[in-house]
Amino acid sequence: MPGLIDPDRLCIILVSTRNPLNIGAAARAMCNFGFRNLRLVQPYDLAFREARSAVGASSVLTDAKVFATVADAVADCTLVIGTTAIGHRQMQHALHILKDGASSILQELSAPSDHPSRVAILFGSEKVGLSNEDLSHCHWLLHIPTGDKQPSMNLGQAVAVCLYELAREAAPPVPVTARPRASAEEVERLTTVLLETLRAGEYFTTQSLDSKVENIRRLLRRMQLSPDDASTWLGMFRQILWKLRAKN
Amino acid sequence: MPGLIDPDRLCIILVSTRNPLNIGAAARAMCNFGFRNLRLVQPYDLAFREARSAVGASSVLTDAKVFATVADAVADCTLVIGTTAIGHRQMQHALHILKDGASSILQELSAPSDHPSRVAILFGSEKVGLSNEDLSHCHWLLHIPTGDKQPSMNLGQAVAVCLYELAREAAPPVPVTARPRASAEEVERLTTVLLETLRAGEYFTTQSLDSKVENIRRLLRRMQLSPDDASTWLGMFRQILWKLRAKN
Repeated sequence: MPGLIDPDRLCIILVSTRNPLNIGAAARAMCNFGFRNLRLVQPYDLAFREARSAVGASSVLTDAKVFATVADAVADCTLVIGTTAIGHRQMQHALHILKDGASSILQELSAPSDHPSRVAILFGSEKVGLSNEDLSHCHWLLHIPTGDKQPSMNLGQAVAVCLYELAREAAPPVPVTARPRASAEEVERLTTVLLETLRAGEYFTTQSLDSKVENIRRLLRRMQLSPDDASTWLGMFRQILWKLRAKN
Repeated sequence: MPGLIDPDRLCIILVSTRNPLNIGAAARAMCNFGFRNLRLVQPYDLAFREARSAVGASSVLTDAKVFATVADAVADCTLVIGTTAIGHRQMQHALHILKDGASSILQELSAPSDHPSRVAILFGSEKVGLSNEDLSHCHWLLHIPTGDKQPSMNLGQAVAVCLYELAREAAPPVPVTARPRASAEEVERLTTVLLETLRAGEYFTTQSLDSKVENIRRLLRRMQLSPDDASTWLGMFRQILWKLRAKN
């Protein structure tokens, strides 16, 4: 979920998409990461109708706008970016890998509102990507770094990865309430009962007893027990100790 | 594509997956980012057969191994991580957001080879995610930060985003050969022809001529033209200038 940026200034534009599942997947990823503006340029008609009428179709999908040309779809955008699976520099355009390009996009999305900026990210069709004509509307190109053996990503996954990168920095950290730690007294109580249990179980030989005790004391401290876990262990060893003594 | 890490030490484990498209999508994302080890725990049988027999099924998919239990699937792994759509801390487990958790995973994947470490990342079923029993095999949990309105990601997209994050730092930057810039002489030649054209087109009034000329000189320099682009502009204005003079 973007923080200081205005997510409504980002438009995801799908050009000539054929598979309704991909349109649905793009919309779902937008919902996941808090973006809303979906535009479609000449979607395969049936695909769009199917995606829109799917059970659980999101408001992103029902509010999506359809355009006849890329020029119409990007008309109100101040920065237009094309995505490409081709990692090497294309001579006609500057090319950025996603993590570097994202910072330029975020800058544009957080520009002061008296100069309303709007960013379009274009995704081409499943089969051929964006055409040269589509790309001629773009300021620069964005590439998700993939391996040479299988560079081309699934459309829905590519949209998800791009939006994840844009939302990545703004994501609030998980409120990690540090796991409480058992006090030294609790751990030492456990140590004592464990040692008694081991003695009752005849674990120790007489030689090297001291060093073994020290090993066990360190072992228990490495476990970084919480008070609850220390208490659980204590209960287990007390029961075992009781049983061992009952047998003798 | 991971660099210093060994991608073969990462296992993606899909637990009780029902949709063949999701199994296929997970495999495709693994191919995209250079990972190979796919494991399935009790996949819906038909789903797995369909995914495996799909046109263009990758070697990741055909080499995928099927296990009866999570315990079997993670047996050789030294770090086992569960994924969850629930962003708040679950009391039973430590929870990390993806970008933070990824560094721990990468560290384990790059551990020296005389201590062979292996990491498993578990993804639950489409409908209910991982069960508490599944989670009890995990050292900690991983969460992709998503918005509260639609926290749950599509399975294939979640796998893609996790693998992107793992491959993100290792991605080589695009070899940006800085776009060549026109020399001052080339830009000044263009300036001269543009000014002549504007004079011929009676663009200037007599007052404020000097300041307008300076504006135009700065305007052309802001365009940061390449030699080719400067030459193209020069050709266009020369033609216009010729036409303007021919009319007089």
